[in-house]
Amino acid sequence: MKVEGAWRRTIERDGPNDIGVRVLDQARLPYAVEWLRLATLEDCARAIRDMHIRGAPLIGVTAAYGVAIALAEGKSLDEAIRVLGATRPTAINLRWALERMRRADDAFAEADRICEEDVALCSAIGEHGKALLSAKSGRARVLTHCNAGWLATVDWGTALAPIYKAHEAGVDVHVWVDETRPRNQGLLTAWELAQHGVPHTVIADNAGGHLMQKGEVDLCIVGTDRTTRLGDVCNKIGTYLKALAAHDNGVPFYAAVPSPSIDWTLDDGAAIPIEERSGDEVRFIAGREVVPAASPVANPAFDVTPRRLMTGLVTERGVTTPDGLRVLFPEHAR
Amino acid sequence: MKVEGAWRRTIERDGPNDIGVRVLDQARLPYAVEWLRLATLEDCARAIRDMHIRGAPLIGVTAAYGVAIALAEGKSLDEAIRVLGATRPTAINLRWALERMRRADDAFAEADRICEEDVALCSAIGEHGKALLSAKSGRARVLTHCNAGWLATVDWGTALAPIYKAHEAGVDVHVWVDETRPRNQGLLTAWELAQHGVPHTVIADNAGGHLMQKGEVDLCIVGTDRTTRLGDVCNKIGTYLKALAAHDNGVPFYAAVPSPSIDWTLDDGAAIPIEERSGDEVRFIAGREVVPAASPVANPAFDVTPRRLMTGLVTERGVTTPDGLRVLFPEHAR
Repeated sequence: MKVEGAWRRTIERDGPNDIGVRVLDQARLPYAVEWLRLATLEDCARAIRDMHIRGAPLIGVTAAYGVAIALAEGKSLDEAIRVLGATRPTAINLRWALERMRRADDAFAEADRICEEDVALCSAIGEHGKALLSAKSGRARVLTHCNAGWLATVDWGTALAPIYKAHEAGVDVHVWVDETRPRNQGLLTAWELAQHGVPHTVIADNAGGHLMQKGEVDLCIVGTDRTTRLGDVCNKIGTYLKALAAHDNGVPFYAAVPSPSIDWTLDDGAAIPIEERSGDEVRFIAGREVVPAASPVANPAFDVTPRRLMTGLVTERGVTTPDGLRVLFPEHAR
Repeated sequence: MKVEGAWRRTIERDGPNDIGVRVLDQARLPYAVEWLRLATLEDCARAIRDMHIRGAPLIGVTAAYGVAIALAEGKSLDEAIRVLGATRPTAINLRWALERMRRADDAFAEADRICEEDVALCSAIGEHGKALLSAKSGRARVLTHCNAGWLATVDWGTALAPIYKAHEAGVDVHVWVDETRPRNQGLLTAWELAQHGVPHTVIADNAGGHLMQKGEVDLCIVGTDRTTRLGDVCNKIGTYLKALAAHDNGVPFYAAVPSPSIDWTLDDGAAIPIEERSGDEVRFIAGREVVPAASPVANPAFDVTPRRLMTGLVTERGVTTPDGLRVLFPEHAR
């Protein structure tokens, strides 16, 4: 990641004796770069729930530290897992990290390991995915939805890692950035890309299909909050619409899937719980109430893209078709 | 339409001797109900260009009055047609209305006729389209994109006319209202529906595909800015994505197409000029610059939904499949 100041990652401890963490406050980005110190279980739970930190991988890492912090506060493991597990329902990384923490002997050491592993997973996804962009002749024009960059992880990102790696290798990459209503995480993506000097253009979520019809998109790549063992991809609401457009126009559509985002207990994505967030996220824009008060609002936060629309999944072990997940990760085959 | 005050329509003259028009200012809606007087050619051109009035049918009617007003100012017919014709490129109603005005003997009388005809066309679309909703058992759950209600026409609307007619006939209708970024015309639709007491829920543009996957949508209906003679439908950006999702989920997808919106000279919708509007429409939300200054923005305003994704077109002469337009309107067959 590239942020002014001494901090190298979106989440960090001050040192091995620190019993808290410092996180980049994403509720303030991209308008202010501010760090938030999480020193209690409730700090960690609130940071996840209110999306001061967000992105499935970073939610997992923050929850891991949350358990370690809770234990240091004298709270029980069960309470920590219960409180953190109730923060957000869709990202499977949260459950995965809490299960790891349940089995850990040294909580901070395990959280540190989960944190380091996240960086390694994302870096490997970047290396594997880079080839998808490098294969293009001339400029590679990529469309992404939401933010699956280093802001959504500890470093590198998932969907954006291949873009950063390709950009650093000299590939000419341009990114179409979906605004991603209602929370506008696309603006986080735009800010990230600008920090790295990666050419990009922000578009309304409505525009991507038209750009694909006009031949302006070579490849789509998105992150995931939960992917089933058969390769159905749950991700930010609106992902499904872009996958349909990609399919209709012969544009390859990839999801970047670190293995902690895979739910090995589920086959069918329709079984994934979809978080319904506050309607105020739609009703208020930039602090102003824009939806008429007499009008109700619905705000589902994720959708599921069926595996038939996925060209491939980019994992830390390589790129595979959806049904190849079980081959790449034989230890989870059943 | 239902608006407080003495005015019955979105555009009206004070009387047969009025050489101006009064329009409902849509740049202020839904936050303030204000009327704007257009008394010069430039007033009319600006109102169309800056979207104080909007919607293909209302653009056509306003342009017709614009010609009459220009002539009353002593301007030439050619100048009036040139200035008004350059305001917006996509809606074919504009060109259609200007051609009618070119051949008119009495300009205000012809503009009045175009205005009255628009009300009749929309009312007929409402009657024909109503049956699509009445056929549902129980609640009819309709999704619409942008605003194709009476705000987009002189009265009734196109896509919303069947909804109003069904609602008045006692059909239980609920409308999913797409926010319609970047200009948020969905908020106009929500306001309109609230005025009539039609149950509705506002959603982000990203949400519609998910709702269709979950079986929450019985029917989609949208307006059009230009439809080709073979039935390709150009409409507000993002319409194509909803049509793809409808097709993928077996949800019927209709466009409401008054005949002045049909371009009989075009077969292929890909030939329709797509307006690229200012990036500031995406960059600024509620007056605040939300997109980082370092990030460029693209803002295509319309897309084309190919006829293969259209279940049917609702015209003033009845509902037809796309290839049936030439049958319903034999005078234009070639």
